[in-house]
Amino acid sequence: MPLYGGIEAGGTKMVCAVGTGGDDLREIRFPTASAVESIPQAIQFFREAQQQAGVKLDAIGIASFGPIDPDPTSPTWGYVTTTPKPGWANVDFAGQIKQALDVPVAFDTDVNAAAYGEGRWGAAQGLHTFVYLTIGTGIGGGAVSNGKLLHGLMHPEMGHSRVPHDWQKDPYAGSCGYHGDCWEGLAGGPAIQDRWKQSGRTLPEGHPAWDLEAHYLAHGLANIILIACPQRIIMGGGVMEHLFLFPMIRKNVQTILNGYVRVPHLAEEIDAFIVPPALGNRSGVLGAIAMAEQVAQ
Amino acid sequence: MPLYGGIEAGGTKMVCAVGTGGDDLREIRFPTASAVESIPQAIQFFREAQQQAGVKLDAIGIASFGPIDPDPTSPTWGYVTTTPKPGWANVDFAGQIKQALDVPVAFDTDVNAAAYGEGRWGAAQGLHTFVYLTIGTGIGGGAVSNGKLLHGLMHPEMGHSRVPHDWQKDPYAGSCGYHGDCWEGLAGGPAIQDRWKQSGRTLPEGHPAWDLEAHYLAHGLANIILIACPQRIIMGGGVMEHLFLFPMIRKNVQTILNGYVRVPHLAEEIDAFIVPPALGNRSGVLGAIAMAEQVAQ
Repeated sequence: MPLYGGIEAGGTKMVCAVGTGGDDLREIRFPTASAVESIPQAIQFFREAQQQAGVKLDAIGIASFGPIDPDPTSPTWGYVTTTPKPGWANVDFAGQIKQALDVPVAFDTDVNAAAYGEGRWGAAQGLHTFVYLTIGTGIGGGAVSNGKLLHGLMHPEMGHSRVPHDWQKDPYAGSCGYHGDCWEGLAGGPAIQDRWKQSGRTLPEGHPAWDLEAHYLAHGLANIILIACPQRIIMGGGVMEHLFLFPMIRKNVQTILNGYVRVPHLAEEIDAFIVPPALGNRSGVLGAIAMAEQVAQ
Repeated sequence: MPLYGGIEAGGTKMVCAVGTGGDDLREIRFPTASAVESIPQAIQFFREAQQQAGVKLDAIGIASFGPIDPDPTSPTWGYVTTTPKPGWANVDFAGQIKQALDVPVAFDTDVNAAAYGEGRWGAAQGLHTFVYLTIGTGIGGGAVSNGKLLHGLMHPEMGHSRVPHDWQKDPYAGSCGYHGDCWEGLAGGPAIQDRWKQSGRTLPEGHPAWDLEAHYLAHGLANIILIACPQRIIMGGGVMEHLFLFPMIRKNVQTILNGYVRVPHLAEEIDAFIVPPALGNRSGVLGAIAMAEQVAQ
């Protein structure tokens, strides 16, 4: 029986787990401190897990906040690169894990990993081309395309795509430090907070904030549909815990596309096309374990 | 020596060719009439070509205007579907060719085929993830992702994605019958004609039309980069014959992304990242032949 490790490194917390992807996971969660504190904590957890299981891990997958370098041919493969997060810029995250534990290591973005996890055990099983989005403090997008995680010139950065912004209707300038009113700048959690002077957590269903939110989220989705052609879009993250947003977003997507793309996914099957994660908030760490499976030798 | 056939069916002309993809092509071009006229003309060409070569074709690839059904598991695979083009709606294009000539047939959009052709013999050799765009009467986008043509819920329809539209700066409402000011509606050939009351063919370099065109084209490209992560973007079509647009577009893409994505493709290597087709106006028909190679048994 193989044993895999997974790390989901988020901006605020780290989740480390061992298992084979089923229910037999041993897991810890701790706040993400600087790399010099958090990476040894993860290594310690895996050493103990190996001791307890009496076997060596076959591989470890890492699902990391970004930006990162996931290109295996690059000299800085495995690094967290230009992050503003204190103590993490230019850190050889994957290399340190690999060296300490002497196992094959897979390394990707948290959202690419979450997409992979949903494909392996969740809402995208049996599909070859799909997208996972997290709508929270930021907007992140991961993708599996033709059965493999999507990497080209880099990993996807869907949150920074642009959507139409009607300044008359919504004079808010956007919250993105790089782009102002990009998708994340208009529709991420901080934009909701800034625009309405109230956290999205406390805004009630029926508030106009949610009409605008569904409008912007649907515009980003429409672009993803037309460019990346996913067979399914999975939407997680704090904002999407407001499940009433799903039907609103689906309706907006149909309005925006206006019947141009005639497929069942956008008509009678749309409830199965834009969906919440089946793995809840465990898509990332389970995706890391699924990535580990792939690199195990 | 295998022999392959390729059909590029465009809105106004059809190109049929036989060969192996090198310089040994025999080829005809004729205006696209209705399906009942044009499909038999293509079949006749291939019959004559087989007779002349003294061998049977191993396979035929079809690169078709759309919308089409390229899903091999669908009962309407091979059909041109809801096109407004007279005599082509709901036509079993691939099935008729397959039945008449009794060969394996590959079927995809003209732009997906052009992407594939550029990957096989042109500007994207050795890459696994790239995009081909044609900017002309419409804006069409094809993509190879992780080494395969991109199909999910359908084929890409990148031209109908949305980009920011500053109504103060550009009060033109857009030319798209479905979406008004989508990317194609703002930046396709007809939009240039409508907005400036002059064909793009006669507008001189330095005219403000080209600043606006480069601005919109770059916005569409930025979204494609952030969502589909291509290793290269190939831009063909009538509008892009104005080669002075390339440096303008590259500069606009850098301005829009504003240093967020730090990769050489968007910095010192950008001249090799956004490029014209290496196969000129033959990407489509050569792509059809490359697709035929893939389905030959």
